[in-house]
Amino acid sequence: MRIVVLAGGIGGARFLRGLKAAAPDADITVIGNTGDDIHLFGLKVCPDLDTVMYTLGGGINEEQGWGRTAETFQVKSELAEYGVGPDWFGLGDRDFATHIVRTQMLGAGYPLSAVTEALCARWQPGVRLLPMSDDRVETHVAITVEGERKAVHFQEYWVRLRASVDAHAVVPVGAEQAKPAPGVLEAIAAADVILFPPSNPVVSIGTILAVPGIREAIAEAGVPVVGLSPIVGDAPVRGMADKVLAAVGVESTATAVAQHYGSGLLDGWLVDGVDAAAVPEVEEAGIRCKAVPLMMTDVDAAAAMAREALALAEEVRA
Amino acid sequence: MRIVVLAGGIGGARFLRGLKAAAPDADITVIGNTGDDIHLFGLKVCPDLDTVMYTLGGGINEEQGWGRTAETFQVKSELAEYGVGPDWFGLGDRDFATHIVRTQMLGAGYPLSAVTEALCARWQPGVRLLPMSDDRVETHVAITVEGERKAVHFQEYWVRLRASVDAHAVVPVGAEQAKPAPGVLEAIAAADVILFPPSNPVVSIGTILAVPGIREAIAEAGVPVVGLSPIVGDAPVRGMADKVLAAVGVESTATAVAQHYGSGLLDGWLVDGVDAAAVPEVEEAGIRCKAVPLMMTDVDAAAAMAREALALAEEVRA
Repeated sequence: MRIVVLAGGIGGARFLRGLKAAAPDADITVIGNTGDDIHLFGLKVCPDLDTVMYTLGGGINEEQGWGRTAETFQVKSELAEYGVGPDWFGLGDRDFATHIVRTQMLGAGYPLSAVTEALCARWQPGVRLLPMSDDRVETHVAITVEGERKAVHFQEYWVRLRASVDAHAVVPVGAEQAKPAPGVLEAIAAADVILFPPSNPVVSIGTILAVPGIREAIAEAGVPVVGLSPIVGDAPVRGMADKVLAAVGVESTATAVAQHYGSGLLDGWLVDGVDAAAVPEVEEAGIRCKAVPLMMTDVDAAAAMAREALALAEEVRA
Repeated sequence: MRIVVLAGGIGGARFLRGLKAAAPDADITVIGNTGDDIHLFGLKVCPDLDTVMYTLGGGINEEQGWGRTAETFQVKSELAEYGVGPDWFGLGDRDFATHIVRTQMLGAGYPLSAVTEALCARWQPGVRLLPMSDDRVETHVAITVEGERKAVHFQEYWVRLRASVDAHAVVPVGAEQAKPAPGVLEAIAAADVILFPPSNPVVSIGTILAVPGIREAIAEAGVPVVGLSPIVGDAPVRGMADKVLAAVGVESTATAVAQHYGSGLLDGWLVDGVDAAAVPEVEEAGIRCKAVPLMMTDVDAAAAMAREALALAEEVRA
């Protein structure tokens, strides 16, 4: 079975670990969000791709869900001694090596997709990890600071400001001009099932869908497209998805997110047990819906969710 | 008193520490060798400038004479996990931060002299540290490997091969086209004394002198130019200077090195006590010479050497 998964960071990575356990023989292609990539200290950092790679490759810091295990912070503390910022982004020494290799390869002319493949040669994530695009896309968030409206990089909004101010708009800068990375459209066209993990519908999956051609390819693939709600009981399971949902005029409910994707894209939708009341609302929107436990407390829980998603896909197909 | 010092790495840095102790009120400008700079992992590494900066700024690894104290090697070990080399150059985590800041600033368009000044703002070396040039100069060494003649970067010869094969030639590639960095010629013209520490006469001081204009400015400065022999008892005090001296046809003796610089450049020359017999030979070549202890066993010993050099300069002046 060929499965294509659109993934953001922590939620996507943990779901993928469950999916690998649930479908060990599946051929999984992950289309990773690169809209939250950022240049720090002259280095290209791809937080979502790395979170997927480290999580599936056994190098993730399990506690925090991102970054490397057994991490140290000598480089960061030295950069601070030089007065070189930003200091709000937590790059560890082990993590720095990844960004150094990536930046060196990009500088040598390799596209991000080739670089990601090279990095994965070490990590052996057990999936094919593709960036959504080799072109630069950078998610900016419009906010108001001291009465003045300005746009900040998504990471600045998310990590530095911890989404503490309202977002007026979320703009994937460069997405309109971006092309899907080599293999992305081919993987979608060849997929048997397409899954949207409980990743952020705006800044993760929404950004991937903003690359011209990807949304269309998914809609036209003619295979079940099943998503899992990142909203449980009217609040995001993790992160601050409600802030960016508000910016695009979508309520923070499992139903509203399903409607946001829409029946033109989504065939099936899993909501958590506490949102069982959403099932008829979602089905009314033309999307098959089921309520199951959606808390990824461990790999087994994530695997159970993946099995439910695949089962719903088969229901839709039939 | 304005002192200009031409410096390589460890020998130059330790001498400078002694000079600062010997002449605490002097205004010292250091013209640093950049011929052994190297690009590693996409980062610009300036070993000699950093050795001077770390040594005078209190951050040096005293044991080895280069690199940072309390150093760790997480980034390096991760790069090895990625199979990215070279593995023979010992970059530590703390050291990496310096190269990251430097590379970022160079990428932003700052010349190396401005970058060096910015790095020194943290280290406060107590001297004005100038790279010999903002232009790229790279010392290559011609060697024969398995019957085939080839040129390798100086660091590859020095660090990877440990000068274990004969050098046929030493070429400061790019030197002919290089211009002295801003402030270099001005510092030489304004100097009261110019010193050549016991640095490598070929790949350190020789490379600095190979930048058009620097040798001429020193010769025409009209102030005492005093050097200290890096050769004691027919062997280099540290490093493998004999290997590169042979490549330029110079014997590894205190006398031969003085003659190599020549009386057109050098006014005074200090040799070690064990080389007292060299004194008349050097003086015959028109260079004032004195035998004094030249082993930099500690800061006091280096300070005593600096005092001797300054005293010889006054003798020459009178």
